[in-house]
Amino acid sequence: MTITITAFERSPDRGRGMARDMRVRWALEEAGLPYQVRLLSFAQMKQPGYLASQPFGQIPAYEEDGLALFESGAIILHIGDRHGGLWPADLHGRARATAWMFAALNTVEPPILEWEMPKYLERNESWYEARMPLLDSRVKQRLSELSHWLGDRDWLEGDFSAGDLLMVTVLRRLTGSGLLELYPNLPPYIARAEQRPAYQRAFADQLAVFNKSEQTA
Amino acid sequence: MTITITAFERSPDRGRGMARDMRVRWALEEAGLPYQVRLLSFAQMKQPGYLASQPFGQIPAYEEDGLALFESGAIILHIGDRHGGLWPADLHGRARATAWMFAALNTVEPPILEWEMPKYLERNESWYEARMPLLDSRVKQRLSELSHWLGDRDWLEGDFSAGDLLMVTVLRRLTGSGLLELYPNLPPYIARAEQRPAYQRAFADQLAVFNKSEQTA
Repeated sequence: MTITITAFERSPDRGRGMARDMRVRWALEEAGLPYQVRLLSFAQMKQPGYLASQPFGQIPAYEEDGLALFESGAIILHIGDRHGGLWPADLHGRARATAWMFAALNTVEPPILEWEMPKYLERNESWYEARMPLLDSRVKQRLSELSHWLGDRDWLEGDFSAGDLLMVTVLRRLTGSGLLELYPNLPPYIARAEQRPAYQRAFADQLAVFNKSEQTA
Repeated sequence: MTITITAFERSPDRGRGMARDMRVRWALEEAGLPYQVRLLSFAQMKQPGYLASQPFGQIPAYEEDGLALFESGAIILHIGDRHGGLWPADLHGRARATAWMFAALNTVEPPILEWEMPKYLERNESWYEARMPLLDSRVKQRLSELSHWLGDRDWLEGDFSAGDLLMVTVLRRLTGSGLLELYPNLPPYIARAEQRPAYQRAFADQLAVFNKSEQTA
């Protein structure tokens, strides 16, 4: 079996692990699976050949023995179902893990991206400063609800699962904003995840790609 | 087996099928499963008892013989895995359907919600009109990519799947905007889905709840 994922040839986040290949790398490391990486330029991501496997021209795409997949959430779901290691073996435990996977991607990430994207796209607009309190408040609402659920748990549901994996990658986008620190149990939750050996291997590997791209620039 | 979902006591969309219980009702109808509905006021959705089953105070939550689930994507995934009827039986077909489920919720819906929410939250702000072209362009990018993939297919992958179900509920948010009509294959795609008997039963049932709430108001 050969697994191949795609990633940015030159990561816009300069190797801080925010690109979505990090999620899949981490899941593959948790599952103990070797994989290859195909690096793409921004131009290559929009070419017809790539759009045939990733219709929205994003990274990562995933290939495994004739199966072509896209969307980091679906890729991680497949890894867990096919290879294990990402949630409890029982049906209910898996279902609860998937609830947190979707919560990370469809309830928590959207307001965080709405908060983050204006920094790149609307920084010079007259309304930029005036809108930020609104965007802050939407992020805080989700963080507050998440923090309340987490309480003094180590992970969202018993043992670590792909729900934690996705939630932590989403929360890490707020690093340096000061928002996470408003909820005292969230920074230690993220730190616990970052201390996992699988996380550290995945992080080192995506950083190595970026460092190499800098050397050859 | 008893299935119970939660829904708005009084839907903010006045029964147009935009609330997320519509997605789960439709999936349950496709799978041929009877279910009960527990209606909640906005105040009830934020009470501790409900937050224990839906940590973000949203609808729908789902209960089935001791399994409590939340997030419409995860609920639909569970329905398909446990009861069938929402994607092909083979592993690859299911994986491809889940790719479109996540694409609907994490790639297509976020720019559509970013486009929709200012209509409610920022309509009276000085920047409202000036920002709309930016929001339009982000929606158009995703619609263009989706339209390109769809081409002359009836559904995103061979037969109808939960990927189509979620994608159509996401696209329907743009009804009346004029944006869908820029891509000639998208309105017929939505119409095909709306013509499915399962869709029509689900739509009628959620509309009946709203009509009843109006009568008793």
